[in-house]
Amino acid sequence: MSDKVIFKRVAIAGVGLIGGSLALAGKQAGIFDTVIGSGRGKANLDVAMRLSIVDEVTFDLAEAARGADLFFVSTPVESISWVIQRVAKHLPDGCVITDGGSVKGAIVSELERELPDRLHFVGGHPVAGTEKTGASAAFAELFHNHYTVLTPTEKTNKEALAKVKAMWEAAGSIVVTMSPEEHDNTMAVISHMPHLAAFALMETVAWADQDGGMRRFAAGGLKDTTRIAASDPVMWRDIFSMNKKALLDSLSRYQQSLDGFRQSIEAGDFDEIAGRIERVRKIRQAMESDDI
Amino acid sequence: MSDKVIFKRVAIAGVGLIGGSLALAGKQAGIFDTVIGSGRGKANLDVAMRLSIVDEVTFDLAEAARGADLFFVSTPVESISWVIQRVAKHLPDGCVITDGGSVKGAIVSELERELPDRLHFVGGHPVAGTEKTGASAAFAELFHNHYTVLTPTEKTNKEALAKVKAMWEAAGSIVVTMSPEEHDNTMAVISHMPHLAAFALMETVAWADQDGGMRRFAAGGLKDTTRIAASDPVMWRDIFSMNKKALLDSLSRYQQSLDGFRQSIEAGDFDEIAGRIERVRKIRQAMESDDI
Repeated sequence: MSDKVIFKRVAIAGVGLIGGSLALAGKQAGIFDTVIGSGRGKANLDVAMRLSIVDEVTFDLAEAARGADLFFVSTPVESISWVIQRVAKHLPDGCVITDGGSVKGAIVSELERELPDRLHFVGGHPVAGTEKTGASAAFAELFHNHYTVLTPTEKTNKEALAKVKAMWEAAGSIVVTMSPEEHDNTMAVISHMPHLAAFALMETVAWADQDGGMRRFAAGGLKDTTRIAASDPVMWRDIFSMNKKALLDSLSRYQQSLDGFRQSIEAGDFDEIAGRIERVRKIRQAMESDDI
Repeated sequence: MSDKVIFKRVAIAGVGLIGGSLALAGKQAGIFDTVIGSGRGKANLDVAMRLSIVDEVTFDLAEAARGADLFFVSTPVESISWVIQRVAKHLPDGCVITDGGSVKGAIVSELERELPDRLHFVGGHPVAGTEKTGASAAFAELFHNHYTVLTPTEKTNKEALAKVKAMWEAAGSIVVTMSPEEHDNTMAVISHMPHLAAFALMETVAWADQDGGMRRFAAGGLKDTTRIAASDPVMWRDIFSMNKKALLDSLSRYQQSLDGFRQSIEAGDFDEIAGRIERVRKIRQAMESDDI
């Protein structure tokens, strides 16, 4: 066994793009010894075995849990807390548990209340992804130069936190820590609200354009702006539901910005509008040059 | 002279991406005999000459107008009507005038009121473009398989309309005609409102993220959704100003859609939200497969 090993027996619940890529990255970096994949879809688990993403597979969470020193959950965000609570009694003492959910507050507070002290949960969110899903989309470099946010609290076991941090760094991530609340506010602003804006924009176009006659003139602007409106409805229902408060705060700010533009347009104050566009243009241009 | 020639002496006011590309496409198709470029920037006119986009250049609109049987204006949208009115007395009888402005109602109604009957204006809008500007960005294929909208009214000279239509088709465009009002409503929905949504979204992110700490986590979603927020402030000030009514209508619908999402989120009716996302997802996916 390599002396780089951080976790000897890694159980992954949900061997999709995120879970599968972590398995590949961890094995490539030599930080995982054995990886056992668990999930509900036989076809996907077969793919994970065939592509050597995992060493073993099982439909039985309890079996996956047995002897694991890391339990990683990358199931849909709405089920993460439930999966962990259900498997808890099968996990050995000292087992480190972490997840890949894109909302953290609800998961962290629920698990801190429900999990026994002998298990060590660390909330996590690798901010990476492609439009593809499933084990077949997984690749070891997915996390390279992408952020992973960890959301420890005062209750988080420090040794478990250090191990999870080392794991994500070995997978190529830039790891930052913040509170679950700060994470959820950040994601509301830079991800969840933009999705909501795109859904509403596509809805607006559809209302105005019942017969599709207008859409044929759509140039790059509408296409870029609504690309994420083709995202998965169930996933976004769950994210909106779990991050309701921060999303509503962000939506209020957005509605306030639109109201401001409306007032200036109605008042004919177009130089005020040019000034606002000039300011956001500079911010957007700076964002482009920050690209990593 | 080729018998394909539609216009013998073409004056182009504003030899930028659109004006320059029309000059190149028209000469390549053999429908223009001589092209004279006019504008206020010496450097840009020098480029237009050096790249053989035009045959002659002048700073003097009156000189460009003399003997022209087509006067094409692709200056900033806010100045199009003014340029045409200023040059009118220098244009010969029967001269066809058309433009490339992305708002039509105000331009068409003003010119129908102000121009003498001996001149024949046809409102036009080639729905094509790249993020680049100036003569150096021009290329003959810019209009290939892109729509050009012409906006004739009952006052439009039919022969002039037929010639302008033939010109854009020779340049590779798919030509459609609609009323100036229908054009402006369409553009408000599929272009002007999406730009406003992107400006407001970027403003929302900037408000929430004064120190830039959140933006570093921005993934493709925010970047796609705000790409057009880096557009030219003066151009968009003018478009919003000239298409005020249709833009406000479209903004009302957008605000109504966002209010609807807010109500469902506040009420915890997340299945309603999943249903709405499912509907817009299908529309967005269909838009992608319609790509030309």
